[in-house]
Amino acid sequence: MEIRILNGKTIAAEAGKSIYKTLKDNGVYLVSSCGGKGVCGKCRVKLIEGSARIESTGKLLKKEIEEKFALACKTIPEGDVLIEVPEESKLIIGDKIALSKTKDLLEYLRAIDPALTPTVRKIVLKLTPPSIQDNTGDLERLKRALGEKGIHDMVFSHAFILAMPKALRGAAWDVCLSYTEKHEAIGLSAVCKAHHYGVAVDIGTTTVVVYVVNCADGTLVDAGMTYNSQMRYGDDVITRIVYATEGGGLQDLRNAIVNDVNDLLAPIIEKNGIDVEDIDSAVISGNTTMTQLFWGLDPASIREEPYIPTVNNYPVWRAGTARLKINSQAPVYTMSNVGSYVGGDIVAGVLASKMYKNPEVALFMDIGTNGEIAVGNNDWMMTAACSMGPCFEGSGIRHGMRATEGAVESVKIDLSSFEPSLGVVGNTTPSGICGSGMIDAISELFLSGAIDQKGKLRRDLGTDRIRTGEEGPEFVLYRGERKDIVLTEVDIENVIRAKAALYAGVSVLLKEVGLSLDIVERIYIAGGFGNYLNVDKAIMIGMLPDLPKEKFAFIGNTSIAGAYLCLLSGQMRREAEEIASKMTYMELSVSRGFMDEYMSALFLPHTDIGLFPSVKGLYKK
Amino acid sequence: MEIRILNGKTIAAEAGKSIYKTLKDNGVYLVSSCGGKGVCGKCRVKLIEGSARIESTGKLLKKEIEEKFALACKTIPEGDVLIEVPEESKLIIGDKIALSKTKDLLEYLRAIDPALTPTVRKIVLKLTPPSIQDNTGDLERLKRALGEKGIHDMVFSHAFILAMPKALRGAAWDVCLSYTEKHEAIGLSAVCKAHHYGVAVDIGTTTVVVYVVNCADGTLVDAGMTYNSQMRYGDDVITRIVYATEGGGLQDLRNAIVNDVNDLLAPIIEKNGIDVEDIDSAVISGNTTMTQLFWGLDPASIREEPYIPTVNNYPVWRAGTARLKINSQAPVYTMSNVGSYVGGDIVAGVLASKMYKNPEVALFMDIGTNGEIAVGNNDWMMTAACSMGPCFEGSGIRHGMRATEGAVESVKIDLSSFEPSLGVVGNTTPSGICGSGMIDAISELFLSGAIDQKGKLRRDLGTDRIRTGEEGPEFVLYRGERKDIVLTEVDIENVIRAKAALYAGVSVLLKEVGLSLDIVERIYIAGGFGNYLNVDKAIMIGMLPDLPKEKFAFIGNTSIAGAYLCLLSGQMRREAEEIASKMTYMELSVSRGFMDEYMSALFLPHTDIGLFPSVKGLYKK
Repeated sequence: MEIRILNGKTIAAEAGKSIYKTLKDNGVYLVSSCGGKGVCGKCRVKLIEGSARIESTGKLLKKEIEEKFALACKTIPEGDVLIEVPEESKLIIGDKIALSKTKDLLEYLRAIDPALTPTVRKIVLKLTPPSIQDNTGDLERLKRALGEKGIHDMVFSHAFILAMPKALRGAAWDVCLSYTEKHEAIGLSAVCKAHHYGVAVDIGTTTVVVYVVNCADGTLVDAGMTYNSQMRYGDDVITRIVYATEGGGLQDLRNAIVNDVNDLLAPIIEKNGIDVEDIDSAVISGNTTMTQLFWGLDPASIREEPYIPTVNNYPVWRAGTARLKINSQAPVYTMSNVGSYVGGDIVAGVLASKMYKNPEVALFMDIGTNGEIAVGNNDWMMTAACSMGPCFEGSGIRHGMRATEGAVESVKIDLSSFEPSLGVVGNTTPSGICGSGMIDAISELFLSGAIDQKGKLRRDLGTDRIRTGEEGPEFVLYRGERKDIVLTEVDIENVIRAKAALYAGVSVLLKEVGLSLDIVERIYIAGGFGNYLNVDKAIMIGMLPDLPKEKFAFIGNTSIAGAYLCLLSGQMRREAEEIASKMTYMELSVSRGFMDEYMSALFLPHTDIGLFPSVKGLYKK
Repeated sequence: MEIRILNGKTIAAEAGKSIYKTLKDNGVYLVSSCGGKGVCGKCRVKLIEGSARIESTGKLLKKEIEEKFALACKTIPEGDVLIEVPEESKLIIGDKIALSKTKDLLEYLRAIDPALTPTVRKIVLKLTPPSIQDNTGDLERLKRALGEKGIHDMVFSHAFILAMPKALRGAAWDVCLSYTEKHEAIGLSAVCKAHHYGVAVDIGTTTVVVYVVNCADGTLVDAGMTYNSQMRYGDDVITRIVYATEGGGLQDLRNAIVNDVNDLLAPIIEKNGIDVEDIDSAVISGNTTMTQLFWGLDPASIREEPYIPTVNNYPVWRAGTARLKINSQAPVYTMSNVGSYVGGDIVAGVLASKMYKNPEVALFMDIGTNGEIAVGNNDWMMTAACSMGPCFEGSGIRHGMRATEGAVESVKIDLSSFEPSLGVVGNTTPSGICGSGMIDAISELFLSGAIDQKGKLRRDLGTDRIRTGEEGPEFVLYRGERKDIVLTEVDIENVIRAKAALYAGVSVLLKEVGLSLDIVERIYIAGGFGNYLNVDKAIMIGMLPDLPKEKFAFIGNTSIAGAYLCLLSGQMRREAEEIASKMTYMELSVSRGFMDEYMSALFLPHTDIGLFPSVKGLYKK
């Protein structure tokens, strides 16, 4: 008996075992807030072929059931089955790229701050056991031992004191006290374990990434990624702010993101045999709205002029307050924001890029649902943000997906026949197209003359690759047995709007500081898809400025990289806070120049072709 | 239509209005945790005469219903009724003695610490409203304004930040910030109100007293008193510790006492038109077990050798954590303990007595369910505790009651006829006997020869005042229409055990410091019944040491008095903490001498009559 996943693995199934459990046991993780109890409705899969016993359909809609959706945790195969796992049901656990990346970061960290300094500290305290002669209170006994180590200002919460008497006696008065940087007691254990863990979280508008790190040696234990399930309430931050404030859905949004993080953590904890109580610190990185929603703070003022965040420099609260399912007393550090639209993720990015340490002027771009730009050096720094929409993260695009197995990541189109040849992640059957694939495709379509400067498909080329689909004109990238992979004119429009916003942002920001592009020595491209992007193609469509290729550096997801650095180092946390306070924030939405620049950039590559000398003449008129 | 209360007021009843509501509207308050919803079962009254519509009997037992008990909140008179309100159902609100007492305390306080300094402070902050040019976060804006006032170390909780954006905008950026002594932000309001309130609480093993104080001018707004409803789980601290630990009833005990405090506060808040949010600080005073139960801390180690409390010097936590129904962010200060059996109530008492300020050696005795003794002066202080049982608080005695209306408080017995003449609080029909009444009665019975040195009633005196009742021999103090008021031999035994424990404690403590009684210049008697006690009679039965009457001073409930002082003054809090740390605690239960002294004191007045020269020869052999 087998479970075959469309465009994926084939797994041996056991009789009586749910699809959810079988997949999990074979390293394919599905989203599940309820842990496989049929309650949360997140582990939806499509049962394409074969028969299965469906124990419950939980919260599934009638329409979904008709479309053959089933809850993987409540569906037990009764023979061979073929299933399709929708993108939003997937958890990606175990990221090899992350593993190699963190090795470099750790090396860098060790050079700056040789002893790792997470937000939680540990100290061994040998207390004199009480006697009739020495009958002071438990807390006073603990304080006395701390005093002998020179610590006199420890703060004790009610929760700590509740657990203290048992812990002290259980450890025979020889205990390990963990406490925060600010000397707030966290917990007592019998020994200071050699390994304790921290969690770094990148909350993107579209995707959520989690690293579980061994805080004793700094190594990455595991990593996971999933879609931000706030997406059901809106694609971008503005829609979600509206939902939170006008729709009263603040708690929905908070629950969605907190559950996503917990859903990612659960299988990592299980897979690696970690004791949840040993995860005793966390760092959260995200844009201003994301962190505000994570903490349940009303984001209303972010959206209303003069665009004010509730907090830029977050106090360190506890995991219990955050509702994270790790040690409830674990300190949760939040990356500092610069302003309403440049958040802690960008501060983390600048930190990871190291551009704030060098005298050369660098340009930093984080390409996600929001495009954030920073320009500057070790002396000054300026930043701004623009809304790009989720197209480069595989959302809002007909066949969009993340750069995971089955994603079309590169496209070459024959100039005369218009036949495409595709590069697919994992060299497998294509199941969608990721950000770099879209940029490739559009630049190739433009180069071959299949689309015009406005991104409209030409209908007079005599190729059946261009046809009319449900949403209008589309280009067929791949003809599949079950479905074709297409790029629609609407998709192309979305990409053009996104690239125009980014380019306009860069232009306005440089103008504001009175600099021209040639002074920029280095361009750091951050964001989930940063590793696969073809610079020439991105310049071709006018997304990136026309600068020599060697100036570009792709640095991947720097939000999580910065969070990882801050999870392990007090020095890094102080530098991140300094970056946040040093950056000058420019509000593009009130800039007179921005709209003009944006309108000019809505062409391929740009209304002013003089800005793109290397592109000029390459494409058919 | 009238409601007549046995031994109490007669109140006009309205058709359709419950007994609970009618009584409340006429200033007679019953215990009710549920606010009159028929759920908590605490407002039990006995319906002696008349008919009433009983809407529900809630949690009442079958036996209670048969005994004519009803829930006052679910019982509506249908004509004149006569009810009996059991002691445990009564809340005493509005205590005139307390009012005059606090005036003296306030005068004393003003002399030491002219500006009142409660645990909560207030500051007016005028923030610059945000603009595109000045677009920092709300928290950073607040911190900036605080920095301008020289405050740079304020700590902000998640709860505070959640409420902050609305509060800032609601007050048009001109706000009043309240914060704790340790610079933890509590809340924001549009103006710093002229009046805000604090609550001082004395948690006795048997009774609970609450003061609501205007923290702006220090005046007492109102006071209330009730029985500690933990009594249903045991009369003394040891029984309750057993219930908490072996019976797993820690949460029951915590809920009981917290509800009692909230039950006392609710009618005071309503009666005085106070906004609950304006009650923004509290001080808790009680013995070590009581405060530990109040905070939900397992008291197990208090009972097991070497008798260790969890905390002596409590951190200041919040009202929300304590589950007090006042401003949830209000700091709750707990009086420091000395040890497991000498708690914050005694520290409060020593503070209120001022004995720690004078060079003369004084003896302090707090007579309640526990007897605590302190001896010392401004240079040294020694303390110990003994268990007396609740007899002096009107519990565990057949017709025992507190010194409220209807209590027999003084007794004179004719030496030949054995006929008693009674002094009754409020000069009304007697309904029970309070502590001072019992001491009077026993000393008079002893003087008249009606009881022997062991407290046994003589049966050969030819008076029908001595008879055999349900529990054995008893003396009839009052022949009532409905019930007689008696003092049983069991009652007398209880009192003798209590007085023996107290006297033995004093003896052992003085021996420990190598002092004799004549060095003691002053004896402070604290405790609920302290105001009514006849010293001669108490010496007669061997309860108080045989010293000149002018050395004795009755100072009433000093636990609440000390709590009141600490509620209003930082200086007082520091002095109380110093008292607690300075006192040497002696554990009587492991003292070899204590049991001998106790056995010797189980006689009237004592085995060694030489210790009571003034008593010798007064009584019939």
